[in-house]
Amino acid sequence: MGMTIEKILNPESIAIIGASRNPNKVGSAILKNIRLSYRGKIFVVNPFADEIQGIKSYKSITNIKDKIDIAVISIPADKVLKALKDCEKKKVGAAIIISAGFKEIGKAGEKRETELKSFLKSSKIRVIGPNCLGVINMDPMANMTFVDPNTKIFKGSTAFISQSGALLSAIVDDASANDIGFSKIISVGNAVDIDEADLIDYLREDEKTKSIVLYLEGLVNGEKFLRSLKEATKKKPVIILKGGRSNKTSSAVMSHTGSLAGDYKAYELAFEEAGAITVSNVDDLFNFMRDAAKFEIKTDEVVVVTNAGGGGVITSDHINEQGLKMAQIGDKTVIDLSKILPAESNLHNPIDMLGDAPPDRYKDTLEVVSELNKPTIVIFSPQEMSMPMETAKVIYDTHLNKPNLPLFSVFLGGTNVEKARRFLVERGLPTYEYPNEAVDIISGLYFYYSHRFPTYNRYKKEKAKTVPFKSKVNSFGMNAKLVFDKIGIKTVTGMTISKENELKKAAEKIGYPCVLKISSHTVAHKNKIGGVVTEIKDYTELEKAFKSLNQIIKDEKLADAKLELYADATNGKKNTIEILLGGHRDPVFGPMIALGIGGVYANEINEVEFALPQISDQKIEELSDTKVGKLIISAGGNQMLDEFIGYIIRLGKFMEENKNVKDIDLNPVIISGNDAVAVDFKIFVE
Amino acid sequence: MGMTIEKILNPESIAIIGASRNPNKVGSAILKNIRLSYRGKIFVVNPFADEIQGIKSYKSITNIKDKIDIAVISIPADKVLKALKDCEKKKVGAAIIISAGFKEIGKAGEKRETELKSFLKSSKIRVIGPNCLGVINMDPMANMTFVDPNTKIFKGSTAFISQSGALLSAIVDDASANDIGFSKIISVGNAVDIDEADLIDYLREDEKTKSIVLYLEGLVNGEKFLRSLKEATKKKPVIILKGGRSNKTSSAVMSHTGSLAGDYKAYELAFEEAGAITVSNVDDLFNFMRDAAKFEIKTDEVVVVTNAGGGGVITSDHINEQGLKMAQIGDKTVIDLSKILPAESNLHNPIDMLGDAPPDRYKDTLEVVSELNKPTIVIFSPQEMSMPMETAKVIYDTHLNKPNLPLFSVFLGGTNVEKARRFLVERGLPTYEYPNEAVDIISGLYFYYSHRFPTYNRYKKEKAKTVPFKSKVNSFGMNAKLVFDKIGIKTVTGMTISKENELKKAAEKIGYPCVLKISSHTVAHKNKIGGVVTEIKDYTELEKAFKSLNQIIKDEKLADAKLELYADATNGKKNTIEILLGGHRDPVFGPMIALGIGGVYANEINEVEFALPQISDQKIEELSDTKVGKLIISAGGNQMLDEFIGYIIRLGKFMEENKNVKDIDLNPVIISGNDAVAVDFKIFVE
Repeated sequence: MGMTIEKILNPESIAIIGASRNPNKVGSAILKNIRLSYRGKIFVVNPFADEIQGIKSYKSITNIKDKIDIAVISIPADKVLKALKDCEKKKVGAAIIISAGFKEIGKAGEKRETELKSFLKSSKIRVIGPNCLGVINMDPMANMTFVDPNTKIFKGSTAFISQSGALLSAIVDDASANDIGFSKIISVGNAVDIDEADLIDYLREDEKTKSIVLYLEGLVNGEKFLRSLKEATKKKPVIILKGGRSNKTSSAVMSHTGSLAGDYKAYELAFEEAGAITVSNVDDLFNFMRDAAKFEIKTDEVVVVTNAGGGGVITSDHINEQGLKMAQIGDKTVIDLSKILPAESNLHNPIDMLGDAPPDRYKDTLEVVSELNKPTIVIFSPQEMSMPMETAKVIYDTHLNKPNLPLFSVFLGGTNVEKARRFLVERGLPTYEYPNEAVDIISGLYFYYSHRFPTYNRYKKEKAKTVPFKSKVNSFGMNAKLVFDKIGIKTVTGMTISKENELKKAAEKIGYPCVLKISSHTVAHKNKIGGVVTEIKDYTELEKAFKSLNQIIKDEKLADAKLELYADATNGKKNTIEILLGGHRDPVFGPMIALGIGGVYANEINEVEFALPQISDQKIEELSDTKVGKLIISAGGNQMLDEFIGYIIRLGKFMEENKNVKDIDLNPVIISGNDAVAVDFKIFVE
Repeated sequence: MGMTIEKILNPESIAIIGASRNPNKVGSAILKNIRLSYRGKIFVVNPFADEIQGIKSYKSITNIKDKIDIAVISIPADKVLKALKDCEKKKVGAAIIISAGFKEIGKAGEKRETELKSFLKSSKIRVIGPNCLGVINMDPMANMTFVDPNTKIFKGSTAFISQSGALLSAIVDDASANDIGFSKIISVGNAVDIDEADLIDYLREDEKTKSIVLYLEGLVNGEKFLRSLKEATKKKPVIILKGGRSNKTSSAVMSHTGSLAGDYKAYELAFEEAGAITVSNVDDLFNFMRDAAKFEIKTDEVVVVTNAGGGGVITSDHINEQGLKMAQIGDKTVIDLSKILPAESNLHNPIDMLGDAPPDRYKDTLEVVSELNKPTIVIFSPQEMSMPMETAKVIYDTHLNKPNLPLFSVFLGGTNVEKARRFLVERGLPTYEYPNEAVDIISGLYFYYSHRFPTYNRYKKEKAKTVPFKSKVNSFGMNAKLVFDKIGIKTVTGMTISKENELKKAAEKIGYPCVLKISSHTVAHKNKIGGVVTEIKDYTELEKAFKSLNQIIKDEKLADAKLELYADATNGKKNTIEILLGGHRDPVFGPMIALGIGGVYANEINEVEFALPQISDQKIEELSDTKVGKLIISAGGNQMLDEFIGYIIRLGKFMEENKNVKDIDLNPVIISGNDAVAVDFKIFVE
């Protein structure tokens, strides 16, 4: 696929099928863009014209004698398939289908798209689109889109892939004003053939691309995308804006875990897991587009140097709010600073050089703090006598002397500092108007550099038996318990009671108080039908419960129902903590394992961590810093958290093995001292 | 105070004490700014000059014959007091002290500031500053600051008050490029006399000010500020950026509630309670500065009209993430839209008019949806053949026809739409580059318009006895229990055991299982010394516990210690929920009442709602939408939440009455069915 994409981006000849004489038509803008940008051979196909924009027009691509590398197709949707077949005849390697009128317009279009796909299955021709804006290569230049030919586009090192054509053209239109250049710009449209994963694979190896930015609304093949994404982040930063984050969880979800998961959660997890940086605003994208590939950030400790107390204060706020840390300034550095800064300065982070700081004071201070080799934010606030341009030059010199120091500048203010800001931006130094921009970049890049090489040692090492699960119905109670026992998750003692005469023996084994429950694969929520009797203190109470539950089974006509007797796991135990353990199969990304606050708190407090198997060592380590992780540690120590980590790994392996399992609820798992035991268990199937 | 501030902003004559010939000095920039902006009489005081910038210089202000309204003082700090005394002699009404060198520079400056304050106490002269940038009135114009005289400043309707001079000059410098104009700009500096509250009082009544924006780092008199803020928000939007939000809770905090409260929490609560809009970035401020006073937003349902699917998607995301709603489009509107929009359009919210939407389609669609009278975001994305300027004109016409419709435009893109965006901005229509900007404004204004008239009916109505609390030591156990019993918070049955022979009788009253505890005002955390024995099942166990706890009292030398016997509130109860109820006295804003998840979950899960007494009806209503509120409702219904609301009100009244109470912990309060009972109680004093 890489060769094909290379050919699309760098063709020796292009045929524009549907080039148009009418300047109001897409086919006219495409031809104009290609002519203005492209140095190879251009052919024009339009059966109703003899020449367009001064170029000879062919009735059909098959009439052209020369070799054609790729075709750009912009004709009515119902004629696209015929044109593609002509391309195949002509041995054209690939096509960019601009034409709309497919899946996106409803039924008629869906049929067309299915036909297109089935043709592509048996054809050698590869396709980008349909319903896309086209493709731009900036070096060598080839603009094969219908973006406004007047749009200024700079050459740079960011590749941009977008599922929305409108957003792509808006972002490209705004990029030059934001000093952003591109290596490649690709509108994927409906992606019937070449998809986002293929493009990421290609861009990963593209030496002109230093960072990859994506706008996504959805994915068809989550696993393929994730594989490509994981490989790409090993080589360069990938930044993703996901549109459609709103939670529209279907009301049909029966499991706790499923209802806690939501729609966007799996995307977010998957992107994080693959080491991609996620943003949520279009404007957040711009700074990453421009600056993501400039520095490696390998620590979360940030140094702030400022000539304005207020600037230092708000920068510290952002640093803390983004989960970064203000770097501790050691004694040696403080002493060094004390020699060069006035008495009223703050020698600790944020280092306040005072409002009258001349460029030399910036220079001396940066010289000292650059020794710390930590991401450094230099703030300049225009004040009386301050010299923005000279200060910018001093900052640039610092960068030249220490090119690997992650040095970020913030020039607060407008016209007074505009030139200084431009001076630095033009020299490639990350420079912003507001402190939060610098902090966001550092935070995103720190995430990237600390997550791009995930390891899976613990996941692989964890001993987990293969536990096949073949049931075609939901599995609750003892049936499910036996599965979890095999997986190695501790469950409460229990047994099935078939006849009344088994009751006494069972109760003697289990002890009092005990709990009697109805189990039926058609009843997910037993409490709703009164199917649970708790705190049974003696045999008299047990007999009574046995009778009343049997009556319910009769009344509710539960053919498969059984009664099950369980020990009371909380009996005589104080300060127990209830945890939710679960699994959910996301339609795009597959299994997600959940660890959260459980029991009566699960629904309302909604404090859950999710992980995608395989679960990385990094994710596991980070669990102990989450609220749920801390809760488990506070109840049973690090050892207890480790036990739960074993559980989520084994649940992950179980769901990876058994694709029919849709959801799992173990809620609650009760922690009491050094013991954790699941007292309710459910497995839902597809 | 209002008259004085009016005089400062609109003086008939100004004396600049410390006007300077040296263009590098602050005193030179101030004089230049005043001369360039001000039409009244200008006098210059500088003992070392005969004339400055062509104006005669006096040795002392007392030498001037004319009446002087205000003095702007920019001389070394140690000469300020003498100059002020001269001003008093000369009957100058007020002074702006620019000079730095006070509290902000440490000890020497603190002494100077104390002297200044003590002089002001007995003087009639009123002061802004010291250590400030000065004051600007835009109409009539008077720039009495040392901001760079080249800075462009527009006249507008926003008043800006800043505690940071550097941030103020940066924001003012950047404002003109953001199309922001000001009515007044005030740098408060150390605010030794006229403070933020006084200024807010003045600006509230100022007809040229339509919105007030503040940058604050801290406040001395929280109650005074809050009173002024509450009055101001009744008249106009107030927007606050608080610097210094990081949590530096002192490790000395002993109570749960106190450690959960944190530093910024009280500020945030106070601002919200007063109906102010809070923002956390400087760049967020700009849109509010420009647009906060333009529309009233009285519903959280937003209509989105777009020519780009992607634009609609990301706008919906922001709307949901900001807690707003996508408005439901009723049948009538859908039918009306179906008549004017192409077949493939989306007639539901977000209304997608398709990429080829010409200006007329915008016009027709806006005509239909403007009938809904809901905040409307119109998105324009530059696409083939789209006409930005004509579309902008159509949007403006819609505004002219329906001036009260909250109409927000987003023109995605750069150069292609720049002129259209400017066309609308210049005509005062809120117009942005990115959808999240429009959503943030709507969200902030919706908060404002739904919170600016808080009522306190429930708080006032709640019957609460006056419960004086005179203790000078912390109060735990039965001592505290008796207080809460009086307040009307249900507590677990308990009694003090003075001698061994009381034990049996007490146990008979309380029943088994029971709990025996050591109570001493020097021991806040009994568990740490083993001072609690739970699950005592019979008299033998009770006697044993009695002996062992008495031994601990001896060993730990707890002179005041007593033993207390309590019922076991969780005995035989399933699905209990543990709630934390508490109080904390913030040094700036006074009492804050807490309602959160309690017991073993309190520390790690940290899910707490705080409220400042008096607690408004709005705040009470919103409680049921919080996680804690939902948890309580799920456990005991709306009635139970109502009971807790009664508790927090009564705790609020108790803390308002008893200023010596520093913190209160009732943790946990156990909900079981229809019953809620506090089982541990602590009152901490200052």
